[in-house]
Amino acid sequence: MDVNDERLPVAVLGATGAVGQRFVALLADHPWFEVREVIASARSAGKRYRDACEWLAPGALPARVGELTVRALGDPVESRLVFSALDASVARDAEEALARAGKVVCSNASSWRMDPRVPLLVPEVNPSHLALLEAQTDWPGALLTNPNCSTIGLTLALKPLQDAFGLESVSVVSLQAMSGAGTPTLRTLDMLANVVPLIPGEEEKLEAETLKILGEFDEDALQPADLRLWAQCNRVPVVDGHTLCVTVQLEDEATEEDLLDVWRSFSSAPQELELPTAPDPVVVVHAEGPAPQPRLHLDAGGGMAVHVGRVKSRDPRTWQFTTLSHNTLRGAAGGSILVAELALALGRLPGLRLSVE
Amino acid sequence: MDVNDERLPVAVLGATGAVGQRFVALLADHPWFEVREVIASARSAGKRYRDACEWLAPGALPARVGELTVRALGDPVESRLVFSALDASVARDAEEALARAGKVVCSNASSWRMDPRVPLLVPEVNPSHLALLEAQTDWPGALLTNPNCSTIGLTLALKPLQDAFGLESVSVVSLQAMSGAGTPTLRTLDMLANVVPLIPGEEEKLEAETLKILGEFDEDALQPADLRLWAQCNRVPVVDGHTLCVTVQLEDEATEEDLLDVWRSFSSAPQELELPTAPDPVVVVHAEGPAPQPRLHLDAGGGMAVHVGRVKSRDPRTWQFTTLSHNTLRGAAGGSILVAELALALGRLPGLRLSVE
Amino acid sequence: MDVNDERLPVAVLGATGAVGQRFVALLADHPWFEVREVIASARSAGKRYRDACEWLAPGALPARVGELTVRALGDPVESRLVFSALDASVARDAEEALARAGKVVCSNASSWRMDPRVPLLVPEVNPSHLALLEAQTDWPGALLTNPNCSTIGLTLALKPLQDAFGLESVSVVSLQAMSGAGTPTLRTLDMLANVVPLIPGEEEKLEAETLKILGEFDEDALQPADLRLWAQCNRVPVVDGHTLCVTVQLEDEATEEDLLDVWRSFSSAPQELELPTAPDPVVVVHAEGPAPQPRLHLDAGGGMAVHVGRVKSRDPRTWQFTTLSHNTLRGAAGGSILVAELALALGRLPGLRLSVE
Amino acid sequence: MDVNDERLPVAVLGATGAVGQRFVALLADHPWFEVREVIASARSAGKRYRDACEWLAPGALPARVGELTVRALGDPVESRLVFSALDASVARDAEEALARAGKVVCSNASSWRMDPRVPLLVPEVNPSHLALLEAQTDWPGALLTNPNCSTIGLTLALKPLQDAFGLESVSVVSLQAMSGAGTPTLRTLDMLANVVPLIPGEEEKLEAETLKILGEFDEDALQPADLRLWAQCNRVPVVDGHTLCVTVQLEDEATEEDLLDVWRSFSSAPQELELPTAPDPVVVVHAEGPAPQPRLHLDAGGGMAVHVGRVKSRDPRTWQFTTLSHNTLRGAAGGSILVAELALALGRLPGLRLSVE
Repeated sequence: MDVNDERLPVAVLGATGAVGQRFVALLADHPWFEVREVIASARSAGKRYRDACEWLAPGALPARVGELTVRALGDPVESRLVFSALDASVARDAEEALARAGKVVCSNASSWRMDPRVPLLVPEVNPSHLALLEAQTDWPGALLTNPNCSTIGLTLALKPLQDAFGLESVSVVSLQAMSGAGTPTLRTLDMLANVVPLIPGEEEKLEAETLKILGEFDEDALQPADLRLWAQCNRVPVVDGHTLCVTVQLEDEATEEDLLDVWRSFSSAPQELELPTAPDPVVVVHAEGPAPQPRLHLDAGGGMAVHVGRVKSRDPRTWQFTTLSHNTLRGAAGGSILVAELALALGRLPGLRLSVE
Repeated sequence: MDVNDERLPVAVLGATGAVGQRFVALLADHPWFEVREVIASARSAGKRYRDACEWLAPGALPARVGELTVRALGDPVESRLVFSALDASVARDAEEALARAGKVVCSNASSWRMDPRVPLLVPEVNPSHLALLEAQTDWPGALLTNPNCSTIGLTLALKPLQDAFGLESVSVVSLQAMSGAGTPTLRTLDMLANVVPLIPGEEEKLEAETLKILGEFDEDALQPADLRLWAQCNRVPVVDGHTLCVTVQLEDEATEEDLLDVWRSFSSAPQELELPTAPDPVVVVHAEGPAPQPRLHLDAGGGMAVHVGRVKSRDPRTWQFTTLSHNTLRGAAGGSILVAELALALGRLPGLRLSVE
Repeated sequence: MDVNDERLPVAVLGATGAVGQRFVALLADHPWFEVREVIASARSAGKRYRDACEWLAPGALPARVGELTVRALGDPVESRLVFSALDASVARDAEEALARAGKVVCSNASSWRMDPRVPLLVPEVNPSHLALLEAQTDWPGALLTNPNCSTIGLTLALKPLQDAFGLESVSVVSLQAMSGAGTPTLRTLDMLANVVPLIPGEEEKLEAETLKILGEFDEDALQPADLRLWAQCNRVPVVDGHTLCVTVQLEDEATEEDLLDVWRSFSSAPQELELPTAPDPVVVVHAEGPAPQPRLHLDAGGGMAVHVGRVKSRDPRTWQFTTLSHNTLRGAAGGSILVAELALALGRLPGLRLSVE
Repeated sequence: MDVNDERLPVAVLGATGAVGQRFVALLADHPWFEVREVIASARSAGKRYRDACEWLAPGALPARVGELTVRALGDPVESRLVFSALDASVARDAEEALARAGKVVCSNASSWRMDPRVPLLVPEVNPSHLALLEAQTDWPGALLTNPNCSTIGLTLALKPLQDAFGLESVSVVSLQAMSGAGTPTLRTLDMLANVVPLIPGEEEKLEAETLKILGEFDEDALQPADLRLWAQCNRVPVVDGHTLCVTVQLEDEATEEDLLDVWRSFSSAPQELELPTAPDPVVVVHAEGPAPQPRLHLDAGGGMAVHVGRVKSRDPRTWQFTTLSHNTLRGAAGGSILVAELALALGRLPGLRLSVE
């Protein structure tokens, strides 16, 4: 950000797809970032963004971005900061190439999430994991990732419990919305009045990513959290919003009021730094009734908060609850933007600093 | 059943409602039973059944039953065998009155299920519980019940595991279809692209009924099963079919092949007696892929079988799987009819015997 | 509006219901109006609004309104301006009583719509119908109404054609969302993967109201439009957004470009007066492709615009097109607020004048 | 059919797809036909049918057919009678090649429907069009087609009116189920709580095919019906069942009772010949109420009947009604089988005769 207090120019990779469009929409009025480059496959390159993409994100296509000419993946990128909405199939090589070219890449793709050098960040949960960036000595730039859409809600709901009471085991059953489903994995008819009890690879990702995010440094190495974690993932006919039914065994005993308190009072670096995209409160607690529900409650906190409800004790260390989060906002583009905000505000992005405030 | 080998006359209570219609539909071509009386509220009494009910069950309204005149609840009943689809609000008194009048009442209502004198039956799971009938000394007739729609699938899936490996604890998350939802509990808009994470009273029923059904006699008293059982119940936008995601802790270690074997080979009294409504196989095993699904798999075994899929080991004693059963067939009218068939075939119904075979 | 330039106090009748909540939500940040009174049935009276209603409208319940104490229908009302979201069953008498007490009532109910003294207003379509207010000599106050949710989209799409080419006949098939459906008319299961080809009373309302709105004054009497109008109304599984497939016979010949032009350039009193709730453009034209779609396009213009697409000529005077409008915004509370804005800006509300601008 | 009264061997082209599976399911217990060959793309060739297809049709995969080895399209076919469920992209050439090889091809594909030599048949509507077969002199075999899924319901509802009162014009708005939608034309999310107001090519097919089917021979040439026909086609979130809202101008005046009578009494060659798949009645009339509905009424007549309801007069020659038919049974495989039955029973299939009866 230069002395003129202008916004930081950013590039969006995979800009014509569903997540790429969400990046463009969320960045339209962002106080720190401005989309200057839109990058997509060779098929779209050379077209105006407005013509290259079938705009499906909520609200109108931001007029200025609509006039940008789409550039091909692989062409030189000018912006120092890059948001990646690439498919995992091409993300690994393309993102590494950009890091080698000195760029800071905040990626929503799964390719680099489990790499030991790459922080996998939910800014309220594990901001200290930014320290991993020091291990990225193979390139002048940086790679940062945010997790799978179902992982984010789970880690946001678990972190306050982990801090206050310790976690022994977690069992989670997901009822996931369609909007995160890639076209190839579902037939168009699958989601009419149906449940599909398998999302390929999802249970493995949800388990591994959650353990990394809840992990801690031991000496210099990040150790995954030492807890049993089991997931059963289902697709349900919902547009946006992943519902998770969680059973958790705590290390210490707690009362219902204890749990509600730690959730309600949970606040972390993004809230303290007043990051533009940070929700406040982080956790919206529904103390009673049939809540949270995707259609009724998803938009709280700009889609960046996580909801908790149906809290129920089985014994003083065994608790059940239902959590809901927005899979395409908090769980994708919004989560990635919050990662960039955190890293920038903390001065952890090579070559980038925030001059706004 | 008289010497002329005619079918046994039966009455249906609550005949104009959704479950009552299912009774009428399922009994239309039943080899043992014939609907001779249809009984409903005073509002419908005196009308032809065809005019009194808005027929919503699959298939056409059976012509002969359509011509019957609806009688009011409380009027004398001629049939010895009565199927009850009454609302719980009126079932308790009405069913007791019939038992006192010497009738055998097979009820789908919840009112008497947890009474210590009344068998709560899933015929493949606990046929020995028919012995409870001997405790019904307060009336000359008999009361028999079948469980809640979500309990049936769970107990059918658990019983083979309990027999082979023992059960320590069970955790279940349900994704339940709409067709079992009473009108007052949901707004019409609740089920469009939404999940409702609370079904009033359902978790309590699912837990208590399952423990009773899996229980055993100790001396003469039926003891509920000694296992921890936790349920989280959700309503999802599905027409028919309750999906349950189950985590189970076994007493003994097992392999996946062990589990699939005990499910596949599970057979019980209804199959041995070749009862008309008994499914064979009882458990349909889906060894791989995104199954079972409500829209694709529900009709197997005439809607009376239970499906198991997504079997996954966490350790040799901890297993997860998904089960699916038909809530308005197996889980309501069909389950009640199978109870009557079992009791009749075993000669346990006072004053009734089977002369057909 | 007093000399201090404060906002005009308003009361909302039927404030706890779905439409009433929409009024409260839309008025939360309104530049001219401020909700000071919330009025509901005796059952809610005396409670805080926050406790009396289960908040289902998008966004959070406005904090200040949440603290208001609900008053019973029939109690004295202080505000001069009243928005009514009452059920038709009670609206007729209650609204007349308020007009007799000198209040200006902008009603979303159907009770008074077809009364010859009461203007039935779509502000862009028939602002001149405000002249009917002069016929309201039986009370010191005033009654103004807006039409049925499906009528609004139709009249907004037809008016530019009527002005430019004349209308001979109109045939319309509606695919209406659930959110406008009263609870009694649908079972909860009706809208899962289904179409219900009848909405009681809807076809009659759509036909009669459209003719009144498109009518003109002859001498002093408002004459309904002289055109044949036929409607077939269906309920479909959509949350918000009524889709209408329209066939229209024009008096004059036209080309597709003619039609698109008159729609695109359509502007009327609300736009000229820059009313706070007025959309601009009024008609959003989708020149090609599978549009408009409820889930993708409904929010344009704050939900106050109407969409037109799939325009197709059968002969130079016969045209078909598809129109979409937001049934609970433009078609209910939002439409009513725009009526009040128009009447106030034109100085047609007895005892009320606008001092803001 | 040989002297042993065995069933006629048939081949199914495109046997692994959705329509192909429906052919296999419907022919499983057919009294005249027996599936002996299943033919699909090279990718499936050589596999057992059971392994080559993911079975999605209702009911279990017929055991005997499951064991057949899939043969590649283009390999020699032994059966004289062939049912084709091929995609239009490959159907044209493949079906002509079979006709040149002497086969009788009953095709559900669109490729040959509008060819002047090829009968486009709805057996109850235009059995006389079988005479077109005499024009097929370019090959020793025969090509017969059935129309688009939405055309069938329309022509079945219109034919009785055309015969009794004459038709001047027809306007139709369709609300079509998803099960007929090819995967490429819809995104998986399009059908969650949405309406898509465009089905590419559908309106053109519905219009052209209906006019051909309702046409008559003038001298030797088949002339399309002389009536104005306009269609607007929409996709709605329904599994099976196309609903059509129809406005029709008759040549003669009629009363509602006249219309209901001609529909109720409509019967044609398939009923007179008692063809195995023919429904009786052909038209199910719903005289009042919210009917027909896809979820409630579709299965009547084995899915082969057409439903009519919501009949409404605008003037004695202008009528509106709603019609519903099963798009994947009557509108695809079932329609094709009925065509074969008709042609065989009338002795119009070269080299094939019916010896069963």
